[in-house]
Amino acid sequence: MGIKKNTMSKIKRALISVSNKKNLKPLLKILKKFKIKIVSSGGTYKKIKDLGFDCTEVSNFTEFPEILEGRVKTLHPKIHAGILYKRKNRKHLKNIKENNINTIDLVIVNFYPFEKTIQNTSNHEKIIESVDIGGPAMVRAAAKNYNNVTVITSTNQYEELLHQLNKNKGSTTLEFRKKLSLNAFSETAYYDSLIANYFNKITNNYFPQKKIIHSNLIEKLRYGENPHQKSAIYSYDNSLKLKKLNGKQLSYNNFNDIYATLTISKSLPKETGVVIVKHSNPCGVSIIKDKIKCFHSALACDPISAFGGIVSCNFKINRSLALELNKIFLEVIIANKFDKDALNILKKKKNLRLIDASDFSFKEEFRINSFNNTILFQNEDKIKFNPKDFKIVSKTKPNKEQMQNLIFAFNVCRYVKSNAIVLAHNKSIVGIGSGQPSRVDSCKIAIDKMKKFKNPSENIVAASDAFFPFVDGIEMLVQSGVSAIIQPSGSINDKDIIKYANQTNTILVFSKTRHFRH
Amino acid sequence: MGIKKNTMSKIKRALISVSNKKNLKPLLKILKKFKIKIVSSGGTYKKIKDLGFDCTEVSNFTEFPEILEGRVKTLHPKIHAGILYKRKNRKHLKNIKENNINTIDLVIVNFYPFEKTIQNTSNHEKIIESVDIGGPAMVRAAAKNYNNVTVITSTNQYEELLHQLNKNKGSTTLEFRKKLSLNAFSETAYYDSLIANYFNKITNNYFPQKKIIHSNLIEKLRYGENPHQKSAIYSYDNSLKLKKLNGKQLSYNNFNDIYATLTISKSLPKETGVVIVKHSNPCGVSIIKDKIKCFHSALACDPISAFGGIVSCNFKINRSLALELNKIFLEVIIANKFDKDALNILKKKKNLRLIDASDFSFKEEFRINSFNNTILFQNEDKIKFNPKDFKIVSKTKPNKEQMQNLIFAFNVCRYVKSNAIVLAHNKSIVGIGSGQPSRVDSCKIAIDKMKKFKNPSENIVAASDAFFPFVDGIEMLVQSGVSAIIQPSGSINDKDIIKYANQTNTILVFSKTRHFRH
Repeated sequence: MGIKKNTMSKIKRALISVSNKKNLKPLLKILKKFKIKIVSSGGTYKKIKDLGFDCTEVSNFTEFPEILEGRVKTLHPKIHAGILYKRKNRKHLKNIKENNINTIDLVIVNFYPFEKTIQNTSNHEKIIESVDIGGPAMVRAAAKNYNNVTVITSTNQYEELLHQLNKNKGSTTLEFRKKLSLNAFSETAYYDSLIANYFNKITNNYFPQKKIIHSNLIEKLRYGENPHQKSAIYSYDNSLKLKKLNGKQLSYNNFNDIYATLTISKSLPKETGVVIVKHSNPCGVSIIKDKIKCFHSALACDPISAFGGIVSCNFKINRSLALELNKIFLEVIIANKFDKDALNILKKKKNLRLIDASDFSFKEEFRINSFNNTILFQNEDKIKFNPKDFKIVSKTKPNKEQMQNLIFAFNVCRYVKSNAIVLAHNKSIVGIGSGQPSRVDSCKIAIDKMKKFKNPSENIVAASDAFFPFVDGIEMLVQSGVSAIIQPSGSINDKDIIKYANQTNTILVFSKTRHFRH
Repeated sequence: MGIKKNTMSKIKRALISVSNKKNLKPLLKILKKFKIKIVSSGGTYKKIKDLGFDCTEVSNFTEFPEILEGRVKTLHPKIHAGILYKRKNRKHLKNIKENNINTIDLVIVNFYPFEKTIQNTSNHEKIIESVDIGGPAMVRAAAKNYNNVTVITSTNQYEELLHQLNKNKGSTTLEFRKKLSLNAFSETAYYDSLIANYFNKITNNYFPQKKIIHSNLIEKLRYGENPHQKSAIYSYDNSLKLKKLNGKQLSYNNFNDIYATLTISKSLPKETGVVIVKHSNPCGVSIIKDKIKCFHSALACDPISAFGGIVSCNFKINRSLALELNKIFLEVIIANKFDKDALNILKKKKNLRLIDASDFSFKEEFRINSFNNTILFQNEDKIKFNPKDFKIVSKTKPNKEQMQNLIFAFNVCRYVKSNAIVLAHNKSIVGIGSGQPSRVDSCKIAIDKMKKFKNPSENIVAASDAFFPFVDGIEMLVQSGVSAIIQPSGSINDKDIIKYANQTNTILVFSKTRHFRH
């Protein structure tokens, strides 16, 4: 009992200053019940009076007028000393008494909504005006003095506060106050991070001296890539813009695969294309217009790997496609909507995760990769090709269809782990070699895949994410039936490679753009 | 001229409150030169007087005593209105005049060193006491009013301030003030992020509702994985603990490879082992005690891929090893120090990057992986094996050497991209299959690698990062000479796999731990 009594904090007076004024009434009722006095100002003061509760204006409490259109209200020693004094420190108690300062034991503050402001306007003056100064100062003071003071920074915390006050007869526990203190510093850090990042954005300051990333918890995951790893998913926004329509909870590996899949899928022509991914590597892609043919063609690239994989349709899934999809075992199906019949068919598999990604789109964000205490930032590899940037270096020139297939293969290639070789035929990928330390190994894997599952006899094109260091890789491709190759160029053996292409009537295009992805 | 005059801000009074008191003298001289008055308190006031400059105490300026042992000094409307009033707003000017408020046009503040405090003590009370309340409030007020006020938050900014004041005769430009405002919000966000993360740490709150990551710019990189991607490297600390002793600037891909290499290298037995990495995938690992043999054995796994790769020696490199290393083309060599002769030999190649990683060690940090606006967090896969956790399920049991090789292969396997198959022989890796969507493909690649470069006839062991779904992969390994296999287990075909192992006198160990890595 002794310990509990020592750490309990009886509340005599609350300071309330809230931008979001919802759910105040039940709170005010409880404060009244426990005879907790209220100090407030501006809009909050008006709201409290309107709801029929007693309240002292801050300016009466501090005996200093509210000035500068509200910019300076609570930045006063009577407020801050009332919050910050140590309740059991003799010196502090003497200061308080001598300076006629009244205690403030509960601070309920939420800030001017800076986040909403930057979403709704690009007017810089308005945005700056919405930076809250007084609120964070009080919250930080209260959070520092959590031994004595309770700090509420979100309307989501009201219910727990009510519970605490009711249970403890107008007091709060130290444990509760400590948790709130943590939340308070998270709020202020988050808030100032928004401001700093807004400034960075408008000044194109990509790499400031201090980089702060703020994110919101979306979901704790059961575990990470493996069961012995803890994991959670966060977002810069408050939603992933992915709607799960069916199936079990998504795992770390599901999310990792979903994003690997969407990265490719959303890069394809509008409302076109099927992508199949396994272990975050694509194992089938097609952009044939007909939905059924498109899926079958993507699947044909590597039907064994597709088993237990993830399929993304960059369009709405209809009934007939749903019937086809249902024939194989998949972990996840993503689409830009499912029609009603399709959903009914696919939902019959209870564990199958169905994701509506129609609201999802790629923003210009930096990709983060961390190791130990280090973070590597880079912006996404999203450069748009203009075929005019490419250089056709062989005597044989590609026709329109060949050029389209070359561009398609090269586009897919950027999403395949390096070294990457991608073979395409008739708007579909027919072989992928990925993640090899040597380029010629990737060629071999891609060719083996093609020969195993699909063996088109003509017009096979190949894309390589980086240059061929020697002729050997090109040789292997041409001997396996590849008639056109796109690659960045840049090897000291480029001349020999061109020579070999011409000797074999192979089309050779230099993209000049590299697409490493590790 | 008109525009310039409008945005220039003449400084009449500065408020100085600094925890770090270095380099104040030249600053004070300039302030004196331009007749800028100074307000200060506590230790800063004393320091300014000691240096022989005029200064008004905050308590005289505000006509309110400094109370609560300094907890409340500057949290006063005379300070905050003096900072926050709009210099050209009539209402504001009226407020200022009526309330006898004096202008503050320059705020020079650096905070109580919270970061240093948490590094130096684990005393919670001391740490909380070091949370600065007044400083951030003034900095935020000044940063908000950057149209009129100049805010300095770091001693690193003094020189630029001196330059500005000298150049503009006691004024600062709007551009300069805006840049300082951005820096100020970065400082406050960083500061509160430190506090929030300290609280998260002591309460084991791994996944708070709002997660804030703070990092310091180490270096802007020439570009990212590809030349059209912008990139930079940051650290949670102020140093990477990697000393570059020779060679060109490190690139994004170098760093990516260096960390991939160190992750493996630092997991090996103390001061033992060589790791070779290409495209962030290992292509050779050995833990033979003899340094030269160890390097040769790691290299023999895949000498073609090692070309242009990165080598990490988990020990000090001596002269004789340096001579061997010099025989092949490498991009980067990492070691726990280089002896003098070794350094002289290796430095002859001007472009060869030499990294001393003796100060580098792995901390318990969460790994970050981002896509678009989403972040996946997980802690590193660092679980330690106890062979007792493993289950030997075959009739034939491994001898001590075989068990050591199995554990070694399984340890390396966790760092190879999934699906991963790793073959080992005599404390060295002899074949790696990685990054394949189908496990049987990884088996094939690993075997092909082994047969191409090294073909040991006995005691080859294999490790798989996840279970074999069918017997086919195991079959392929055994037929290629593998005599012992470690894998997590968990397939519905486990029984058939055990049966096959017993029919072929193969040693089969179930690790029960999975090691996916994508």
